[in-house]
Amino acid sequence: MSRRPLIVVSNRGPISFARAEGGERIARRGAGGLATALRGLLAREEVTWIASAISDEDRALVAETGGLVPEDAGAPCRLRLLAHDPEAYDGFYNVIANPLLWFVQHSLYGLGAQPVLDERFQRAWAGYVAVNNGFAVEVVAALDNAPQAAVFFHDYHLYLAPRVVRDARPDALLAHFVHIPWPQSDGWSVLPVDQRRAVHDGLLANDLVGVHTQRWRRNLVASAADVLGAGRDHDGRVVHRGRTTTITSRPISVDAGEFDALASSAAVLDAEELVVRGRRERLVLRVDRADPSKNIVRGFTAFGLLLDRHPEWHGRVVMLALLDPSREGVPEYDAYRDAIECEAAAVNARHASAGYQPVDLRIVDDFPLSVAGYKQYDVLLVNAVFDGLNLVAKEGPLVNDRAGVLVLSENAGAHEELGEWALTVNPFDVLGQAEALHAALSMDAGERERRADALANQVRTHDVGHWIDSLLDDLAGVSA
Amino acid sequence: MSRRPLIVVSNRGPISFARAEGGERIARRGAGGLATALRGLLAREEVTWIASAISDEDRALVAETGGLVPEDAGAPCRLRLLAHDPEAYDGFYNVIANPLLWFVQHSLYGLGAQPVLDERFQRAWAGYVAVNNGFAVEVVAALDNAPQAAVFFHDYHLYLAPRVVRDARPDALLAHFVHIPWPQSDGWSVLPVDQRRAVHDGLLANDLVGVHTQRWRRNLVASAADVLGAGRDHDGRVVHRGRTTTITSRPISVDAGEFDALASSAAVLDAEELVVRGRRERLVLRVDRADPSKNIVRGFTAFGLLLDRHPEWHGRVVMLALLDPSREGVPEYDAYRDAIECEAAAVNARHASAGYQPVDLRIVDDFPLSVAGYKQYDVLLVNAVFDGLNLVAKEGPLVNDRAGVLVLSENAGAHEELGEWALTVNPFDVLGQAEALHAALSMDAGERERRADALANQVRTHDVGHWIDSLLDDLAGVSA
Repeated sequence: MSRRPLIVVSNRGPISFARAEGGERIARRGAGGLATALRGLLAREEVTWIASAISDEDRALVAETGGLVPEDAGAPCRLRLLAHDPEAYDGFYNVIANPLLWFVQHSLYGLGAQPVLDERFQRAWAGYVAVNNGFAVEVVAALDNAPQAAVFFHDYHLYLAPRVVRDARPDALLAHFVHIPWPQSDGWSVLPVDQRRAVHDGLLANDLVGVHTQRWRRNLVASAADVLGAGRDHDGRVVHRGRTTTITSRPISVDAGEFDALASSAAVLDAEELVVRGRRERLVLRVDRADPSKNIVRGFTAFGLLLDRHPEWHGRVVMLALLDPSREGVPEYDAYRDAIECEAAAVNARHASAGYQPVDLRIVDDFPLSVAGYKQYDVLLVNAVFDGLNLVAKEGPLVNDRAGVLVLSENAGAHEELGEWALTVNPFDVLGQAEALHAALSMDAGERERRADALANQVRTHDVGHWIDSLLDDLAGVSA
Repeated sequence: MSRRPLIVVSNRGPISFARAEGGERIARRGAGGLATALRGLLAREEVTWIASAISDEDRALVAETGGLVPEDAGAPCRLRLLAHDPEAYDGFYNVIANPLLWFVQHSLYGLGAQPVLDERFQRAWAGYVAVNNGFAVEVVAALDNAPQAAVFFHDYHLYLAPRVVRDARPDALLAHFVHIPWPQSDGWSVLPVDQRRAVHDGLLANDLVGVHTQRWRRNLVASAADVLGAGRDHDGRVVHRGRTTTITSRPISVDAGEFDALASSAAVLDAEELVVRGRRERLVLRVDRADPSKNIVRGFTAFGLLLDRHPEWHGRVVMLALLDPSREGVPEYDAYRDAIECEAAAVNARHASAGYQPVDLRIVDDFPLSVAGYKQYDVLLVNAVFDGLNLVAKEGPLVNDRAGVLVLSENAGAHEELGEWALTVNPFDVLGQAEALHAALSMDAGERERRADALANQVRTHDVGHWIDSLLDDLAGVSA
């Protein structure tokens, strides 16, 4: 496997272009952790990456070059950008991928009222089809240049492309990683039957599908049976339309070396001074995108209940919430941000006193501050409603200096790997979360150290290099 | 089996008491169809029914008699009412059963915000436990009087009682019917782990559990494995704590004779005159409780889309919506009723013209009017978000006189039995519903008759007597 070239396909590429003030084109590392996660791969393998042109400058570059990013432009690998039809891309991204598929896969819809699938949905779905077709055409062209290459699709933006590639190249080696939860078939019933079948049929056009947990793996095997009538072979692979797909559970991880370096960087040390100055005896931390799946409002409610029920913590503990702004302008997200601010204010109104503000809410994109928070927390709260994995639960324990306790949702994918050393909470049970915070704050030092050491050791010995190696082994197994 | 006495246990009994204006105690038939469904059983078997005292007059009777309803009081069988502690009952009924279990089992929560399980939930759960214990004590006492009796629990109010009875009487024959959908295990994860285990463990204390469809049956078998680690034996029964539980799919039905009589009753004929006078060329009907699970708002949206996309129906078709008021005073229900009225008004504002109001919304409890509607519809819309069975989909075709077409949600339990003769819709896809309404209104007479005859014949040959016989057979099989 190791010498088979790779074609990586994802909506967002490893870099995106912008214009600097001086007018020259500059490359920026894209948001999202995929490029970071794949960095080790890019160093070792021959990779062509196909991604959407997202910024205006990306589109300008495509107009100039036809899509191939020049070698000196700062990409970490050979990179081809696709400029999709803007209307199709809008439906693909802003209606189907987010919020629809995101909400379906994180079980966020209140089905009595949402979603309402109308003509806008039908037009947007046509855009999702068109953008996936555009990716597939580009993948087929790349395969023509490198017939032995393996294709590695990423995530919920690209469920349909594998089937189109498969129909054109029946013998191609296709793999796909889904980074978000896979719901059970009743959850998928939110999509009309044609669309839910297309999603499953597209994904099962791959030879290999990776997810973060055994739970999502079981859900996928079962929903493939319920939605498509797919069977199983004697090795547990899914059988559909005469082909087999191996479903593998491979939890993604972080680059331990990178975090070690970050933890002692000047930017983080500066931020840490601020955190140390602002902290009380104990610090409860959360670090998240401002997304309803992250369960931020209930986290504040639980912290308020902690102070109600255990007044001995009053004045002694602060909850620092570092929230990356997310999908601003999308109504569901704007409303959620209002709810976040409202609940934080309510807890502060109830429990603040002279010189003491229990909730410190910061909606900012400040990664050094997050890492500083990781080093300083006594309790890290990860109470996600549903989460494919949740990297915060790995990043925090890796660099924490205080034998901090991880309070972890049973519905975060990371729970399967880390749950035995965390305090488990149900994301809807704010009373249980309040009591888990109290238990974490009250835990004796020996127990805290035992758990914190085990967490850090698990992450360090199962870092992102391990994830890549496992997937390459899976791919080699499938191609053999 | 036929001579084994039965102990029926449900929250709501077959009758409830009130004071007439003259001051005398009168018996009223309870709301809900369970008593109707069991009427055939009451006629044939020796039945003791145990139910909650709900009205003030029910409680007064318990104070006088200790709970046993006098033989001359109008009950259709031996009836014992339980007066629960009012605070415990409030939590049991108004917090846990409705909305929590109802919303969980119909997948109605928008999990980003609801539910928030706090101290109120914990207190209410204690009430749910206490009321279930109260029922169990009464069942054990009834078993002491009739040791050979089979116990037949009903619905989501009583998930815990069977385990308490089982612990006290290991050899008792226990059965339970769940009348609402059974969600998959991710849906159950809304309950904290102790509560979701208690629900499954309680239900599996029964020898026999009945649900309306194979779909809910599969979900229950799978969630028992996921939540409790329950296994299967070689006959497909669920194995838990060393005992087996048979899960059976038995769709409830209606009393065909009763509906035939109703259809020609004076009250229905009077109502039918009104319906005929108000109708245009075509009538689209819906009959439901005003519950978010029934998907009433999206039904209006779809009807509005029909008029947008197919203006030839303007002035020719009216949608009559007959909605039974439900759970008034519960915030979720009050808000839903507002949304219903708002969407109906929006469609009328867009499409009304002189003498033509496309949506005729009536929020009234008027059963003769519903039956009159059943006789007169050209299209019956049943687009439930999720529904255990949905009796409207059976009642309508049984008495309809116009070869009307059934448009039926894939998530209504009745779809498993009736789907092949209905037009299937996805409940979230309002565009698909609009096009299904158009197809139904445009269907040629031969096709309509073929489908309508098949529906009526299926219901007539599988009426409620068939349901009772099947369950008694199942019970006999389990006890053998």
